[in-house]
Amino acid sequence: MKTRIAIYGYGNLGRGVEAAIAQNDDLELVAVFTRRDPAALTLCTPGVPVLPAEQAEQHRDDVDVMILCGGSATDLPHQTPQLAGLFHVVDSFDTHARIPAHFAATDAASRAAGKISLISCGWDPGLFSLARVYASAVLPQGKDETFWGRGVSQGHSDAIRRIEGVVDARQYTVPIPAAVDAVRRGEQPVLTARDKHLRECWVVAAEGADRDRIEREIKTMPYYFDEYDTTVHFISAEELARDHAGLPHGGSVLRSGVTGWDGANKHTVEFSLRLDSNPEFTGSVLAACARAVHRMAQAGMTGCKTILDVPPAYLSPLSGEELRAHLL
Amino acid sequence: MKTRIAIYGYGNLGRGVEAAIAQNDDLELVAVFTRRDPAALTLCTPGVPVLPAEQAEQHRDDVDVMILCGGSATDLPHQTPQLAGLFHVVDSFDTHARIPAHFAATDAASRAAGKISLISCGWDPGLFSLARVYASAVLPQGKDETFWGRGVSQGHSDAIRRIEGVVDARQYTVPIPAAVDAVRRGEQPVLTARDKHLRECWVVAAEGADRDRIEREIKTMPYYFDEYDTTVHFISAEELARDHAGLPHGGSVLRSGVTGWDGANKHTVEFSLRLDSNPEFTGSVLAACARAVHRMAQAGMTGCKTILDVPPAYLSPLSGEELRAHLL
Repeated sequence: MKTRIAIYGYGNLGRGVEAAIAQNDDLELVAVFTRRDPAALTLCTPGVPVLPAEQAEQHRDDVDVMILCGGSATDLPHQTPQLAGLFHVVDSFDTHARIPAHFAATDAASRAAGKISLISCGWDPGLFSLARVYASAVLPQGKDETFWGRGVSQGHSDAIRRIEGVVDARQYTVPIPAAVDAVRRGEQPVLTARDKHLRECWVVAAEGADRDRIEREIKTMPYYFDEYDTTVHFISAEELARDHAGLPHGGSVLRSGVTGWDGANKHTVEFSLRLDSNPEFTGSVLAACARAVHRMAQAGMTGCKTILDVPPAYLSPLSGEELRAHLL
Repeated sequence: MKTRIAIYGYGNLGRGVEAAIAQNDDLELVAVFTRRDPAALTLCTPGVPVLPAEQAEQHRDDVDVMILCGGSATDLPHQTPQLAGLFHVVDSFDTHARIPAHFAATDAASRAAGKISLISCGWDPGLFSLARVYASAVLPQGKDETFWGRGVSQGHSDAIRRIEGVVDARQYTVPIPAAVDAVRRGEQPVLTARDKHLRECWVVAAEGADRDRIEREIKTMPYYFDEYDTTVHFISAEELARDHAGLPHGGSVLRSGVTGWDGANKHTVEFSLRLDSNPEFTGSVLAACARAVHRMAQAGMTGCKTILDVPPAYLSPLSGEELRAHLL
C-alpha cells in the first residue's frame, strides 16, 4: 500500500515534489491543490486530479500526507497551521528567525487535530541543520560555519527586481574559497559577512534606465547587499534567459573542533551539497520527509516536529534489516 | 542531574571516551571497568574508581549507560550481549558483515532485561552510515561511494605485524584523488578497489630479516593487500615512533544522483571527516550516543538500536527550543 501524498501549491517546488514522488515506488501522488484555476494547470503525472485549494478539506480521508509547497514569506505562515488542523503535513518553511513562531502555531493546530506536522524540511533548514546538530553533538568544543552557493538566491534576485528600472535579475551567492579553505583547515577564523560570500548580480535594465543608479541602489541595499562585496553585470533579457535559466545552489556546513585533555587533536566535519536544481532537490527532501511523517503518524506521534526529531531510518524506504545489512 | 557513564575497557578508545565525557557538562564518568589489574591503571579523571570487569554487575544501579570500548574482533561479540543484559549499553562494533548477527544477539539480551542498547556507533559505521541513509533517501536514483583515509588502518597494520620478521608497522589507507574527484563531479564511475585506494606501509623489520620476502608477503596478502597498489617502506623503530605515532583517519561518503522527469539535473551530497585522532573522535561519538541512549531509556524504549534509529536531537545537550532557535 503506497503512501498517498497530495501537493498544495504547484510552482517550482511543487513540480520538484511531483518528480521526486515518481522516483519512489512506495509513494503515490493522489492530488494537487492550487489557488489558481485548476484547468490552467497540466501536471506531469498522468491521471492525477488538480483541485481548487478550498476543496482540500473534502479530501481529508484520501490523503496520508499533505506537502505544502508555498513560499515562506506569505504562504506558509498561515497555510501550514491551517492545513495542520486537517492533515499530516510537511513544509519547507525557511525563514530561520521565524521558525519558533511557526513551530508554535503549527504545533497547536496539529495537537488539536491529533495530527503530526514536520516543518522546515529542505536543505537549509533541513540537511544542513542535521549536519550542524550531529557535528556539534560530537565536537562540543568547536565552531560551525555555513557557506552557501555558488547558487541563485531567490530572495536577493527578488530584491533587485523591486528596484525602479530593473526588468529582471538573477543574484548568485558565491562562497569565498580562501574563507572556506581556512575553516576546512580547522583554523576557526573570525569571518565577517564580507569575508565569507560575494554577491554576483546579473541585471536586465529597462531601456533608458540609469544603470549607475541601479548599480548604486543594489550595492547599498541594507542587509541584502551593503555588507558584501557585490558585482553588478548588465545583460540583455535574451542573455539572462540563455545563461541564467537554472536554479543551481548548494553550500557547505563545516565544524572544526578539538578533542583530548590538552585539546591537541583537531577534527573537521564537513557536509556539502552541489545542486543543479534547488527546487527539485528540496522537493526530493520533502518527499522523503512525507514518508517519515506517515510512519511517525502510524507510530501514534502527534504535534509539530522538525527533521531533528525524525529517526533517520524513517526517511528511507528500506527496512531496518536492510539498512543494517547494507547501509550501516 | 548528570548522566552517569561507565567505561568498559580502557585502551585508546576508552581514553578517548574519558576525554569526551570531560567536554560535556551533562555527562559524568562514574567508573572504569577493566580486565587488567585495576591498580595498574591511572585515569586522567580524578576521583573515578577503576574496578575489575567482573564486578560490573554489582554496580547496575550506579550506572546510567555503559560504554563498551573493547575491540570488534574478539571482545564485543560476547561483551555487548552479556552487558546488555545488565545495563543500557553503547558500543562501536565495526565489522560491517557481522552487524546483523551482533544486532540479533544484543537485541535478545536487551529485550530480556528491559534495557536499551545502541551498537556500531562511531564514524563508519556511525556518522558515515547516517550520510549514506540521508543521501540515499533524498536521491533514490543515485550511487554511493565511500572513501577512507588518509588514515591509519589498525587491521591492516596488525596484519603486517603478523608477518615473520616484522617488528612493528603502520599502514595508511590513502584515497586516490582522481577517483574522489570523478565521484564528486557526479560522473558515477565504476571503480575497483585498486581505483579507489592506495595502501602505504611503514615497516620496522627485525635485524637480518629478508626484506624482499616481507614486502612480497605484504603485497600478495589476500583481501588485505592483493587487490590494491601497495607501497612498502622500511624504517627504523625510532623513525616509526617519531613520524607515525598518531592515529589520524577520515574519509568521505559521496552520493550523486539525478532528479526531474528527464533526470537532467545532477546533485552531489558529500560528508567528509578529517580526524587527527581516530580513537578520540570515535570516543566523542560514543559519548554523544550515551546521552541519546539515556534519553531513549527514559522514553521507555528497549531492545537494540543503531544510530539510524536515534532522533538526532537526542544526541545534543540542547533542548528542542534551543535547537530550533539556533541550529535548525
